[in-house]
Amino acid sequence: MDTIKEAPCWLTFLPGELPQTSAPEETARWELAHAGARCPLRVDEAMGDAFEIGEDGAITGGRTGVLYGAYRLLMARAAKEPLPRGVQRPRYALRMLNCWDNAEGDIERGYSGRSLFFEGGRFAYDPARMRTLGRMLASVGVNVLCVNNVNVLGPAWRLIEDGLPELARLADIFRAFGVRLMVSIDFAQPLRHGIPTADPLDERVQRWWAEQTDKVYAAIPDLAGYLVKADSEHRPGPFAYGRDHADGANMLARALAPHGGALVWRCFVYNCQQDWRDRKTDRPMAAYTHYAPLDGRFDENVILQVKHGPFDFQVREPVSPLLLAMKQTRMAVEFQLAQEYTGHQIDLYAMPPMWREVFDDMGAERVQAIAAVGNLGRDENYTGHPFAAANLFSYGLFAWDPDAEPRALLSLWGRLTYPNFSEREQRSLCDMLMESRAIYEQYTAPLGLCWMVCRDGHYGPGPDDYEYAAWGTYHRADRDGVGIDRTASGTGYLMQYPDWLRERYEDAARCPDALKLFFHRMRYDDVLSDGRTLIQRIYDDHFEGVERAEAMAKTLRALPLPSPDREVALERMERQLANAREWRDQVNAFFHRYSGAPDAHGRPLY
Amino acid sequence: MDTIKEAPCWLTFLPGELPQTSAPEETARWELAHAGARCPLRVDEAMGDAFEIGEDGAITGGRTGVLYGAYRLLMARAAKEPLPRGVQRPRYALRMLNCWDNAEGDIERGYSGRSLFFEGGRFAYDPARMRTLGRMLASVGVNVLCVNNVNVLGPAWRLIEDGLPELARLADIFRAFGVRLMVSIDFAQPLRHGIPTADPLDERVQRWWAEQTDKVYAAIPDLAGYLVKADSEHRPGPFAYGRDHADGANMLARALAPHGGALVWRCFVYNCQQDWRDRKTDRPMAAYTHYAPLDGRFDENVILQVKHGPFDFQVREPVSPLLLAMKQTRMAVEFQLAQEYTGHQIDLYAMPPMWREVFDDMGAERVQAIAAVGNLGRDENYTGHPFAAANLFSYGLFAWDPDAEPRALLSLWGRLTYPNFSEREQRSLCDMLMESRAIYEQYTAPLGLCWMVCRDGHYGPGPDDYEYAAWGTYHRADRDGVGIDRTASGTGYLMQYPDWLRERYEDAARCPDALKLFFHRMRYDDVLSDGRTLIQRIYDDHFEGVERAEAMAKTLRALPLPSPDREVALERMERQLANAREWRDQVNAFFHRYSGAPDAHGRPLY
Repeated sequence: MDTIKEAPCWLTFLPGELPQTSAPEETARWELAHAGARCPLRVDEAMGDAFEIGEDGAITGGRTGVLYGAYRLLMARAAKEPLPRGVQRPRYALRMLNCWDNAEGDIERGYSGRSLFFEGGRFAYDPARMRTLGRMLASVGVNVLCVNNVNVLGPAWRLIEDGLPELARLADIFRAFGVRLMVSIDFAQPLRHGIPTADPLDERVQRWWAEQTDKVYAAIPDLAGYLVKADSEHRPGPFAYGRDHADGANMLARALAPHGGALVWRCFVYNCQQDWRDRKTDRPMAAYTHYAPLDGRFDENVILQVKHGPFDFQVREPVSPLLLAMKQTRMAVEFQLAQEYTGHQIDLYAMPPMWREVFDDMGAERVQAIAAVGNLGRDENYTGHPFAAANLFSYGLFAWDPDAEPRALLSLWGRLTYPNFSEREQRSLCDMLMESRAIYEQYTAPLGLCWMVCRDGHYGPGPDDYEYAAWGTYHRADRDGVGIDRTASGTGYLMQYPDWLRERYEDAARCPDALKLFFHRMRYDDVLSDGRTLIQRIYDDHFEGVERAEAMAKTLRALPLPSPDREVALERMERQLANAREWRDQVNAFFHRYSGAPDAHGRPLY
Repeated sequence: MDTIKEAPCWLTFLPGELPQTSAPEETARWELAHAGARCPLRVDEAMGDAFEIGEDGAITGGRTGVLYGAYRLLMARAAKEPLPRGVQRPRYALRMLNCWDNAEGDIERGYSGRSLFFEGGRFAYDPARMRTLGRMLASVGVNVLCVNNVNVLGPAWRLIEDGLPELARLADIFRAFGVRLMVSIDFAQPLRHGIPTADPLDERVQRWWAEQTDKVYAAIPDLAGYLVKADSEHRPGPFAYGRDHADGANMLARALAPHGGALVWRCFVYNCQQDWRDRKTDRPMAAYTHYAPLDGRFDENVILQVKHGPFDFQVREPVSPLLLAMKQTRMAVEFQLAQEYTGHQIDLYAMPPMWREVFDDMGAERVQAIAAVGNLGRDENYTGHPFAAANLFSYGLFAWDPDAEPRALLSLWGRLTYPNFSEREQRSLCDMLMESRAIYEQYTAPLGLCWMVCRDGHYGPGPDDYEYAAWGTYHRADRDGVGIDRTASGTGYLMQYPDWLRERYEDAARCPDALKLFFHRMRYDDVLSDGRTLIQRIYDDHFEGVERAEAMAKTLRALPLPSPDREVALERMERQLANAREWRDQVNAFFHRYSGAPDAHGRPLY
């Protein structure tokens, strides 16, 4: 029990601190040599990110490929797993991490301390920690890092102006890990320069962006591109000028095109000032309604980045219909490693099972890139909860190969992170992570209902907190039932899906329980397929969710976690248990007060 | 319509700006002379605050008395009202205003801009505005001004240490208006000086307070005393040392006694970390439970300051039973001019009718002092809404004479503030103010239920916002009914009252409608005395409340208010109407969803 964890996160297989390097192949050589692995490296630039590990251990690959090969080899050896055979190629060329770090040093939805990159309006980082981060990202294949919040707040807009020299220095560090930087930009930035408009069809605006982008690429020739949140939650955008989002995105894309940069345009557009009395407007329909008609109008280097579900990273959502709709547009699916609605990196919530579901429904071929909101911060362990690193780790490998099995990813993370664990302990850790999402789901909003979270910070229950609000997030509970009919007879949201998904969900009786209340309005006395009423199922789930969390706590206490992971994980588990009980009691009380139904097993309802 | 308001607030009867004066009788002479009133003044120090205006207009009184007499004479002349005859004496020696201004310049529950007194951690005021404030206070007889928040935040604790020279300069200004300063102190202040405890029975603590208080009075010999919030909402207090509040208050009182200072001890003590599942603990019982057993144990110069109702300045509460219980203790009743729960000085809410009710139930003889939380700020009109000044004006005169009729107070304020109004317009303004509280009450939480306010800032509806919280503030609504039984068969709160009040409230059928849901749990289909069901009464009140607010808006638009009062009042009225509609729809929807009952008149429910 007294072991001390000496390496950050899963990097136990990399001995010591890496010196400054300047190119991925140089990093690869250093890592192999210092790990005592005598593997010849052969750089074949045409291979790019791809690599192959020969029978003799020789690694052939592009400049980044050899680095990925080196890490893969070292990880396989450390975890005692077989080496991958044949040429390994990532599924997507852009495997992005979006950090929501503000220039002032705080992080929007950050649960691991302050920013690793910024403080007091400017860059302020520890180069050694940047190199550790570079190792973390490269070891799992993440190759694009957007360092600033999509809400470009405070002085963050300066990043692409007088902040360029500093941005270039950071890019130098990450270049050695095959990681290219990206920046979130402010669509209205020309207004800061005496141009009276940000209209994307205005020549002065186009010229400003083209010239400024030339300067940006003069400083950082391999910048991955710009990330934009426009016309969303009060951010400026093309709507203000009567233009659509193809106009807006293409204008910026054309400034980037000569430099090979991508324009990543987030599709998180909805009416955040909805009248709660309005039952016709249905927020999940918004993104599809806005963007589907624009399919085919976007330039080649535009990527539309779409959250995996139609709402906003809720615990359980169906796949966004927009991801299935845009066949002539380059798309990225967006996940959120930051546990905004999923437990704040206090409660355990391992995400790979959820990604698996999304990709099984969506099909990996429907997107050309993948992004995730980061869960990093200045905490010593980088992710607040030591196990939250499993999400970052798995995300990288999943982005490389979206056919990956969740259990294999989490198991590899466990073996690398806690090499002292026995086989039984590894299995026990992996089991715990594999069921963590199902447990969290069970004690929070029932059956895909969403938005029962406390509106102050999004941790803990708030059954009615979003019910009379302007966010388009309603459950419409009353004394008879709960939920919104999103079928053809209701808001019609379900009609945005292709037939095979529509058919899965449209019949309330056959709709999978997990999304029953996402798609249907149900009475409390409606009987589910297992013979229980809806209300009894809600009660049962919440009591069971807490029991399972308690069992998880027991498992956790039995694991020989090294310090300080053990103390951090145990302390957070106590908070998770308190949170789970609070969720159970509030959700059950809320529905008990509406339904009047007693619990079939006589457990306490308040 | 184009008139411009030239004097602040109601001070239209005082021409020009007052120069610096140093004593109340000097101020009185200047005011009379410059108003063209040739009234001889005769100071009889023994008369103190009292005065008499002779047949010939001569004013006889104490040093402050002649000032009060002068203002009363000038106001009566301006309003064309008869002069008061005979000796006029205030009912209470301490007529206090408590400002919740923080040293940083913000105001807790401030709705009129930033602090008039502080900015950036220190005093920062406009002396001319201080003199105007002095005139305002003295013209209505307020004679104690506590300048800093009862929550002594940030550097405010320095006020009685290195802030003393500045505090003394401010005291000099207000001395000319017969206004003595008071300071809110931090019970734990000795801990800042190397004393390891703040235990009131510890000699080192007693000595520190005695010595520090000597220094305070050396700087400000006529300081009114200290105001203390202890063991309340996370403030430190005697409980931490196993002492009771008599121990705590007496210790401070003994430091003040040699200087004639009062120790004002707030009785706002309750468990602010209650478990919402707990139905036995009933917050309104807390103050009585804590303090009633201590009756007789407080020193002569201790004043217990008790909020008028048992909760916290809700729109409608019964009188606090503690005010009726402490017969051997000096007591002050506390009101809140700052419209925290009563419309943020956006919605109209004139308070005198409420004070009348409290005093009619309590009896003026049950208290020996009176206090009100201020509604002042740096806004040009001092109170945010120009009509909110009516509350400050009326409060002063009510504190002088608690037998005053609300209508007379509001009418006098109207005549002084808008001398251009015709008799009909004055009546119309006064009618509007007189019914403003009833209207606000009608569209907010029903029938004394309390705590349906939005928890973010306390403006607007939030029917369930306090229901699963730790504040002890529950309505326990479910599909059958709403409210908490506070009679002997319920929490027993009602048993804290004397018989005659208990009898008024204990029978649900006879309990006045306005407090029905404060004292009783009722079914939605229970029939009230007028034959309506509870649920229909809730709907009717909310529809009617909005209609009456709309009628009030019409009245307001017709008044020839001078600029800028007109613009400010009209703009705020639009916000009040939006707020009223939001309250109506949310409260009605909330109860409709629980009860399932349609509106008898078919009006929209959401």
